[in-house]
Amino acid sequence: MQSTQIRLARRPDGEPDADTFETVTVDVPEPAEGEVLLAVRWLSLDPYMRGRLSTAKSYAAPVEIGDVMVGGTVAEVVESRSESFATGDLVLSYSGWQSAVVAPAGQLRKLTGDAPPQTALGVLGMPGFTAYAGLLQIGRPQPGETVVVAAATGPVGSAVGQIAQLRGARAVGIAGGPAKQGALVQEFGFDAALDHRAPDFAERFAEAVPGGVDVYFENVGGAVWDVVRRHLNTYARIPVCGLVAGYNATASPEGPDRMPGLMRQVLTQSLTVRGFIQNEFVAEHYRDFLREMGEWVATGRVRYREDVVDGLAAAPAAFAGMLRGQNFGKLLVRVS
Amino acid sequence: MQSTQIRLARRPDGEPDADTFETVTVDVPEPAEGEVLLAVRWLSLDPYMRGRLSTAKSYAAPVEIGDVMVGGTVAEVVESRSESFATGDLVLSYSGWQSAVVAPAGQLRKLTGDAPPQTALGVLGMPGFTAYAGLLQIGRPQPGETVVVAAATGPVGSAVGQIAQLRGARAVGIAGGPAKQGALVQEFGFDAALDHRAPDFAERFAEAVPGGVDVYFENVGGAVWDVVRRHLNTYARIPVCGLVAGYNATASPEGPDRMPGLMRQVLTQSLTVRGFIQNEFVAEHYRDFLREMGEWVATGRVRYREDVVDGLAAAPAAFAGMLRGQNFGKLLVRVS
Repeated sequence: MQSTQIRLARRPDGEPDADTFETVTVDVPEPAEGEVLLAVRWLSLDPYMRGRLSTAKSYAAPVEIGDVMVGGTVAEVVESRSESFATGDLVLSYSGWQSAVVAPAGQLRKLTGDAPPQTALGVLGMPGFTAYAGLLQIGRPQPGETVVVAAATGPVGSAVGQIAQLRGARAVGIAGGPAKQGALVQEFGFDAALDHRAPDFAERFAEAVPGGVDVYFENVGGAVWDVVRRHLNTYARIPVCGLVAGYNATASPEGPDRMPGLMRQVLTQSLTVRGFIQNEFVAEHYRDFLREMGEWVATGRVRYREDVVDGLAAAPAAFAGMLRGQNFGKLLVRVS
Repeated sequence: MQSTQIRLARRPDGEPDADTFETVTVDVPEPAEGEVLLAVRWLSLDPYMRGRLSTAKSYAAPVEIGDVMVGGTVAEVVESRSESFATGDLVLSYSGWQSAVVAPAGQLRKLTGDAPPQTALGVLGMPGFTAYAGLLQIGRPQPGETVVVAAATGPVGSAVGQIAQLRGARAVGIAGGPAKQGALVQEFGFDAALDHRAPDFAERFAEAVPGGVDVYFENVGGAVWDVVRRHLNTYARIPVCGLVAGYNATASPEGPDRMPGLMRQVLTQSLTVRGFIQNEFVAEHYRDFLREMGEWVATGRVRYREDVVDGLAAAPAAFAGMLRGQNFGKLLVRVS
């Protein structure tokens, strides 16, 4: 059996481009005792992957040049030498950008239940848990409060808004372009929606948060943060989950230096600015997430949207497009 | 009876100077039923007062032009028309920069116990509680962790370091000049001390925190923060209590804009940056503070230092000097 692999060829300076990755085909070895052979069905593309392309200090080691690009996958067991898995089982894996792989059984989780298997990469997986843990453990929305989230049609943002509403808060979503703006209200049921590309975004946003902002779930940074932070209430909480607007940045922007002003705002408004990676909360909260979110998704109280591209060859362009906000929902590659 | 009052005459543009305040003498009325006449003994000077001189958005309203400057005081009851107070009682008041005043009994707290009365303005008052609540509720130091505090010979900083040690953490203090640096270790028992004015401060600081920084209690901002933040550990907590280095600033410093870099650091290191004003914690924690800190001070486990100037007329210059770091310990005005 052969595997198509997409490997890191060159670290990008700015946006990833055609030179960033290379595609190779390799023979897959036979599984040894305790291993299984997997055929990958779905690959998840996520913003955090931009960090893995860089050697800048971060919470995880970078992908090395020549290594297969990392990523979460849903795969089918083709051959098993583990008692835990049988041929045909669907598993959650972290096998990266490749079509087939041999993996130790201990690194896999069997997917069961009625939910479509690829939801284990989205609303019922890492992005959904990121929303659930970051919002509930750091944002802590109270009934009647206003929760704002950007990249709001994405898998994290759409879950943040809907969970906020299930906790009795008002959800205000921000996304790029009128189509996404419309989907926020019509598809996901947000209380208000904004297009951050609209020339009057700042004015519209002010109108959408007449009582100020109690929780800003930070996915994007950049110009959206500049507008939102003018409307934060005293004691507002800002779970910092991602800063996709700056992921391709190559230097600090020109001045003036706004760091002292931000620190002053933190002080005078008793703000909580808290970065997090979902791993921190897994041990304590993942079981509750699967139970609670599973029920919300099954009963339609939390909706999700998928943006599917076909074939591993499409992954590099889809990934670069996601960093520019071109995906519309959870970005997945249908591998085979 | 007459009162000498120091009133706000003009809002300073930068450092407060000779034109900022004016001194007047007024007749004090007789106390009405439920009021007491106070002769002020001690006036507290604190960095937060700089904020009250400005109309910039903050957590409290500014002092109006022509109003008596605000401040905590210890006063003696000269005449009482309240059953709660008798002539000769010492009380904690918020009567501001004036030598005598008539105050409603409900706004006063009688001082009892063996501690010197002016400690109610320092280690056993607002500054001590600021340290206690900010460190324990936000910083949450664990045994073996490293806690860093600047302005460390001040009433907040010196308490932060000593409480950190009582919780099993290592205390590293930063202050301006060799005399203060020496006092941190010899007088307050810090584990390590730095002079932020030393030309090799950044290198010395790195040596003093070989295991990184778990809690940075932020009192000052500016250049000290720039150095400390390079050494923060993952999950570090930064209670933001004050930013005295920037209180006299009139504009944002020149670029590059470091705000995006700070937000990225918050994300990649899962930092908690949390502004606070001690009032937030009074209802839940003040009683514990008085009991616990009272015992620590009485038994010498928490030491404090006072910097006393004589006479209300000295208050404006002492206040301006404090904003430049010239005080050495809790700054008090002995009023009469």
